Amino acid sequence: MAANRTQSPHLPLGDRRDTAFYGQDILEVAQFRRADLSYIFGVAREMREMVERIGSFDLLKGKILASLFYEPSTRTASSFTAAMERLGGSVIPISEVRYSSVSKGESLPDTVRSLECYADVIVLRHPEVGAAKLAARYARKPIINAGDGIGEHPTQALLDLFTIVEESGRVDGLTITLLGDLKNGRTVHSLARLLSMYDVKLNFVSPESLAFPDKILAELDERGIPWEAHRELEEVLPRSDVLYVTRVQKERFDDPDHYARVKDAYVITPEILARARPQMVLMHPLPRVGEISMEVDTDPRAAYFRQMEYGMYVRMALLAMVLGKA
Amino acid sequence: MAANRTQSPHLPLGDRRDTAFYGQDILEVAQFRRADLSYIFGVAREMREMVERIGSFDLLKGKILASLFYEPSTRTASSFTAAMERLGGSVIPISEVRYSSVSKGESLPDTVRSLECYADVIVLRHPEVGAAKLAARYARKPIINAGDGIGEHPTQALLDLFTIVEESGRVDGLTITLLGDLKNGRTVHSLARLLSMYDVKLNFVSPESLAFPDKILAELDERGIPWEAHRELEEVLPRSDVLYVTRVQKERFDDPDHYARVKDAYVITPEILARARPQMVLMHPLPRVGEISMEVDTDPRAAYFRQMEYGMYVRMALLAMVLGKA
Amino acid sequence: MAANRTQSPHLPLGDRRDTAFYGQDILEVAQFRRADLSYIFGVAREMREMVERIGSFDLLKGKILASLFYEPSTRTASSFTAAMERLGGSVIPISEVRYSSVSKGESLPDTVRSLECYADVIVLRHPEVGAAKLAARYARKPIINAGDGIGEHPTQALLDLFTIVEESGRVDGLTITLLGDLKNGRTVHSLARLLSMYDVKLNFVSPESLAFPDKILAELDERGIPWEAHRELEEVLPRSDVLYVTRVQKERFDDPDHYARVKDAYVITPEILARARPQMVLMHPLPRVGEISMEVDTDPRAAYFRQMEYGMYVRMALLAMVLGKA
Repeated sequence: MAANRTQSPHLPLGDRRDTAFYGQDILEVAQFRRADLSYIFGVAREMREMVERIGSFDLLKGKILASLFYEPSTRTASSFTAAMERLGGSVIPISEVRYSSVSKGESLPDTVRSLECYADVIVLRHPEVGAAKLAARYARKPIINAGDGIGEHPTQALLDLFTIVEESGRVDGLTITLLGDLKNGRTVHSLARLLSMYDVKLNFVSPESLAFPDKILAELDERGIPWEAHRELEEVLPRSDVLYVTRVQKERFDDPDHYARVKDAYVITPEILARARPQMVLMHPLPRVGEISMEVDTDPRAAYFRQMEYGMYVRMALLAMVLGKA
Repeated sequence: MAANRTQSPHLPLGDRRDTAFYGQDILEVAQFRRADLSYIFGVAREMREMVERIGSFDLLKGKILASLFYEPSTRTASSFTAAMERLGGSVIPISEVRYSSVSKGESLPDTVRSLECYADVIVLRHPEVGAAKLAARYARKPIINAGDGIGEHPTQALLDLFTIVEESGRVDGLTITLLGDLKNGRTVHSLARLLSMYDVKLNFVSPESLAFPDKILAELDERGIPWEAHRELEEVLPRSDVLYVTRVQKERFDDPDHYARVKDAYVITPEILARARPQMVLMHPLPRVGEISMEVDTDPRAAYFRQMEYGMYVRMALLAMVLGKA
Repeated sequence: MAANRTQSPHLPLGDRRDTAFYGQDILEVAQFRRADLSYIFGVAREMREMVERIGSFDLLKGKILASLFYEPSTRTASSFTAAMERLGGSVIPISEVRYSSVSKGESLPDTVRSLECYADVIVLRHPEVGAAKLAARYARKPIINAGDGIGEHPTQALLDLFTIVEESGRVDGLTITLLGDLKNGRTVHSLARLLSMYDVKLNFVSPESLAFPDKILAELDERGIPWEAHRELEEVLPRSDVLYVTRVQKERFDDPDHYARVKDAYVITPEILARARPQMVLMHPLPRVGEISMEVDTDPRAAYFRQMEYGMYVRMALLAMVLGKA
């Protein structure tokens, strides 16, 4: 959303819950206060109840979502499409950007200003950091950031947090362990920032070369969030309420021996889960490529497919909210 | 559909017609008994009547189909999309699989378990034999096989048979001639298996190197289906009630002279049709590349475009049935 | 639409306004008389009012559009998709033609005759001149030409003219200046032909090597349309009511110096606009790549994004009309 607004869309919304997010952009996790999150999750919970009861409904009937993906992401695009369709709305899918006028040199501002002539809201996936903010600066209609390079992917962070809330019944008081490549994963960075608004303990388990960034650790310190960094999962597994697993990509390692050594330590198997709490929530942003054994899938603690479903509810909530229908 | 069902979805359904196919997968022609076919075709006929009368209706309003195509097939994908849309449902199209997370190494079971978080039914096209069965083993929602390599393509076989039923008014008593490359075409293999449940005579016309497989001929013998193999169409054309033409691909021939010789013998022209029965049904799975002359298109016996339309009705019927709305 | 019609779809429609265009093809601007244009724009204006009031409505509920794009055009495809969805209809998107059965050698007539088994109307984009007419010769359902190579793109011409009508309140009496590459742009050729049905003055401003074609100038002479050809915009800018800017592609120039010289003369900046009329309408078919400075975007005369929106209304009107619902 471009100018002519009495309030920046990036400012926290305080307690104006009735019109919260109407016409606003969803660009980064920093735009949310804790009260915003409660509100979003409340709406997402209503979405879940409606879907479980009647599947779809016509809250956004007649509304059109432009799904503008400059790089492919089947999962995220499908999730937004399903969210819009379950609310009775329609989708203009634009995924062949590389073949089209866009790749002929048209600027992102021109593309979004064209698309908003047709659509009511634009979901944007783009390989460059800051693309969503740039789009929002020019667009009259709401922009939802569906990932801009190594920058932000706020709807992923929201669905991760919503999964924790729904599976654990709370966030305050939880010990949450993040595992894997914590250096490169924007997912865990954004999640940690959201979690820092709550009373949690964080554990970071990764090889030293893939450690969680100091910059965000400093932010956690500022907010008084206790955290520990570890190299071995077993040191923290028994006292974790949530275990969030991410992919360890071979290419990230300088030393192949190091990769071979840590890789197996970070694969979740039934044997490893045997040492975890009976109510622990096991999460993964998917796709996984070996980080969690398929034998674990039937364990009730395996929440990663439910996590996908929570994602649809969160996106339904966001779409309804920015379109003023929540 | 995965476990927790009192009955395997692959068992014939006997006479439980009221709940037939609800929540079931559509994987292979062997899962159908003759009574199943009658039931499916009855529903398909109702779909046809509704479409002819009012175009579309809201039987599946709010339902979402995930259309998961690991290889392109414009025709089949469009047919399922149209079927879902004419029933008031929505579609999540996933056709760029090669560019997406799926190609990053995610397993088919993970992909279908992710998609079923969003969708109510999954249509799967995959280049590997057995892919649909694998998907169905893991999925909670119904899987419809839209072709798995040289394996099965059950909805094509059903629409072929439905075309014969609708155009001829019956199946029992018919003489049906299959022409072209009968060795490699999964279409004619599946159709022959379905036809073997009826009282039919089958003619197979092909070059020797592209003959119908002995394995399926043995199945026909077991079921007491009379059949003849020929090299020349003219030997059986005058006594055929149905002529099903398939493509003869040059690449299949070892000897180019052989190809040049048989190719023309298998091209249907008005002159050839002059020797066929006045009520004969001329079919082709399309696309054709020269096997049937365009001059034949205006002949009332040319049923191949109507065949496409019957396909939509059959797919509407299957979607409604597996979603419990037939 | 194929034969069995009492009247050719390409003949002007005279004053049979009640059933105008029902079941007809939209192939080329030459098929329209001035009365047709008034009628189309009247319907487009109703579409605009409805969209501004309620966003979407169910005029084409249950109708299906096959969007068949043999070459990518995000903008045009999105516009038709939005138009269909805002009318409550559905879309079968077929944009991967190069990977599919079509590219396996299937003829365009076969493809459209297959698709019309599923859809109620077909929008066709094709790289070859005459493709839309060929498709229309075989199809039973209406074909809308969304661009066939350097041939026609009638819906673009209609939306350009509708933009002039809506922004200026009239066409008769206007002085309209076309700027840029006037040799290769089918857009300006079609627009000039439509404008020649009105009482207008035309200015053509281009480098000599990219001048407006003599053939169409002769047509203008025949119709008594006064026109002038210029090399410099400043000669005609102050007396222009409409300025239609097109892209000047470097590749079109034999002499790089020439390109460098004219290029800047043809870039619209706030300084240049200062010499234009206060009510002038500034248009561009988009995408632009530098022909209009982004600083101009906030000028109320900049109509190019509104032009996109008018395009959606024109396409809504055409879809409703050919489907008999206007």
